[in-house]
Amino acid sequence: MSEKALFVGLDVGGTTMKAAVVDETGHHWPSVSANTESFKGQDVGLETMCETIRRAVKAADKTMADIAGIGVATPGTMDIAAGLILDPPNLKPWRNVPVRQHIQNVFKIPIAFQNDANAAAYGEYWVGAGREVKSMVLFTLGTGVGGGIIIDDKVLEGAHSHGGEIGHMKIEMTNPRLCGCGRRGCLETYASATSVTKRARESLTAHPHSKLAAIAAIREEDLTAKAVFDAANDGDELAKKIVDDSAYYLALGSMNMMHIINPHAIVYAGGMTHAGDAFLDRIRHYIAELALPVPASKTLIRYAMLGSDAGFIGSAACAKYMVQGKL
Amino acid sequence: MSEKALFVGLDVGGTTMKAAVVDETGHHWPSVSANTESFKGQDVGLETMCETIRRAVKAADKTMADIAGIGVATPGTMDIAAGLILDPPNLKPWRNVPVRQHIQNVFKIPIAFQNDANAAAYGEYWVGAGREVKSMVLFTLGTGVGGGIIIDDKVLEGAHSHGGEIGHMKIEMTNPRLCGCGRRGCLETYASATSVTKRARESLTAHPHSKLAAIAAIREEDLTAKAVFDAANDGDELAKKIVDDSAYYLALGSMNMMHIINPHAIVYAGGMTHAGDAFLDRIRHYIAELALPVPASKTLIRYAMLGSDAGFIGSAACAKYMVQGKL
Repeated sequence: MSEKALFVGLDVGGTTMKAAVVDETGHHWPSVSANTESFKGQDVGLETMCETIRRAVKAADKTMADIAGIGVATPGTMDIAAGLILDPPNLKPWRNVPVRQHIQNVFKIPIAFQNDANAAAYGEYWVGAGREVKSMVLFTLGTGVGGGIIIDDKVLEGAHSHGGEIGHMKIEMTNPRLCGCGRRGCLETYASATSVTKRARESLTAHPHSKLAAIAAIREEDLTAKAVFDAANDGDELAKKIVDDSAYYLALGSMNMMHIINPHAIVYAGGMTHAGDAFLDRIRHYIAELALPVPASKTLIRYAMLGSDAGFIGSAACAKYMVQGKL
Repeated sequence: MSEKALFVGLDVGGTTMKAAVVDETGHHWPSVSANTESFKGQDVGLETMCETIRRAVKAADKTMADIAGIGVATPGTMDIAAGLILDPPNLKPWRNVPVRQHIQNVFKIPIAFQNDANAAAYGEYWVGAGREVKSMVLFTLGTGVGGGIIIDDKVLEGAHSHGGEIGHMKIEMTNPRLCGCGRRGCLETYASATSVTKRARESLTAHPHSKLAAIAAIREEDLTAKAVFDAANDGDELAKKIVDDSAYYLALGSMNMMHIINPHAIVYAGGMTHAGDAFLDRIRHYIAELALPVPASKTLIRYAMLGSDAGFIGSAACAKYMVQGKL
């Protein structure tokens, strides 16, 4: 038997799910993963979740009797307090899935349930980029812009499970871009990886001799956010402008969080962070220009450290907090 | 001796300060006030604070021995944790004033210290517009736009005392108005009473025959935010447009708070709320149009209830929370 309390963290994504045993210090055993295959329906999905939890325990060479609690994170929409997935765009055709209750019935130990971006934020806060601070905002930069807010060891879930939906703060009125959510002017539509690609495509007509135009001319699908960042690192002026604009938009969203939440640290996660330190420095540059002097000078501005492990580590952290009453 | 624990709440403003004895249920005795007269210097200011506290105790027919704690709220800039006013634009020429320590030395009982807008939010949360909810965002609409955020009985102070500075979230990039803070595009520069007047003045050239132009022609200073709201209630088209735009800007700021904090209630305080229910209904209209469906339908949208008493009631609430460990 282990001296430290053990938890299982499970992070369910639209494509795959990932789980591992995590001890109360945040150390984790090898993770296991499975295809989510939401199209097979929610009953199959719930069984895959349980089986992935069992496999994670086995991969750690433990038994279920060693596990003090399980944390499960899923994409929204959801009712966190009720333990329900409601109508998730990334897990179709699931609807009103009683995740927490089902897993509780199977394993009969405490089950914590959380939004996936919130869980990732909690993982980074616990043992990642925010490990030495008491409040943190995470921006997850991918197809969209998600986020999680942690204040004094607590996830800001919100009254209706919408806390930390920071990709959908509106930052433009005059000429607002259309967002995937149907609204206009959301941060997501400026600062996501999808937006980098979109802004690159929009600029090609005006810059027919740019490196980006050359890439798109061969195969349009190759003009990805990564290609834009690579071209910027190679010195292409148009790509540099698009990357710089992205840094500005993220700085603007970060400044707003500094003036609303005023966290100790702001952390960026997701594919776009592969752009490296030059991109982070441009974000910092614009934050210094935009924000009020005290938060501008004192807020830690960092990349996430846990990669795609943040979700299951944060899920385990939710379980630990529930079982032990502390992080 | 009273059966209920008693506190003094003191709310220091740029022009006047106000204090009263408040019991642990939020009931308060008659308030007293004094001119702040910050120009006389901070030593005089601190003595006026202490004297105002003594007068409040006397006005309640109590003695200092009856008081369990004192809460003091002041405008920023400040270091809440350290109990310091730093460099307050509304209390010149004060600088680095050890408010909490000074009052503690004088009265030798527990002293809570808080930002004035945070305290007003806490007062509304305790016994005003947010009394039955567990999270609330307050917008204070006056010369500027201030705010306070309460989550689970706690004031969101922020890592550097900048939590809830929601007037300085940026909502416009293309054509951003210049804010008093030196930045551009802040909510404050769209949604404050000052902005109502400013937008009214800007519109006069294009609308020389409007009621607002007639008011300004007689005496320019009479074109106040109140005059614009009155003209709108009288059916003046230009005034209606300016008021409607104000409702839109406030709805936009509120929507952003719904997607970041996702509180149970959003509450508006300050002079602009005299505009009445028609204005509140326009804010609600735009929130329904702008926000994600769940928070749009579930968030309570209200005017504040405590008027200018919110600050001292909230200050007393901070003292109560400090002394009793609960609200």
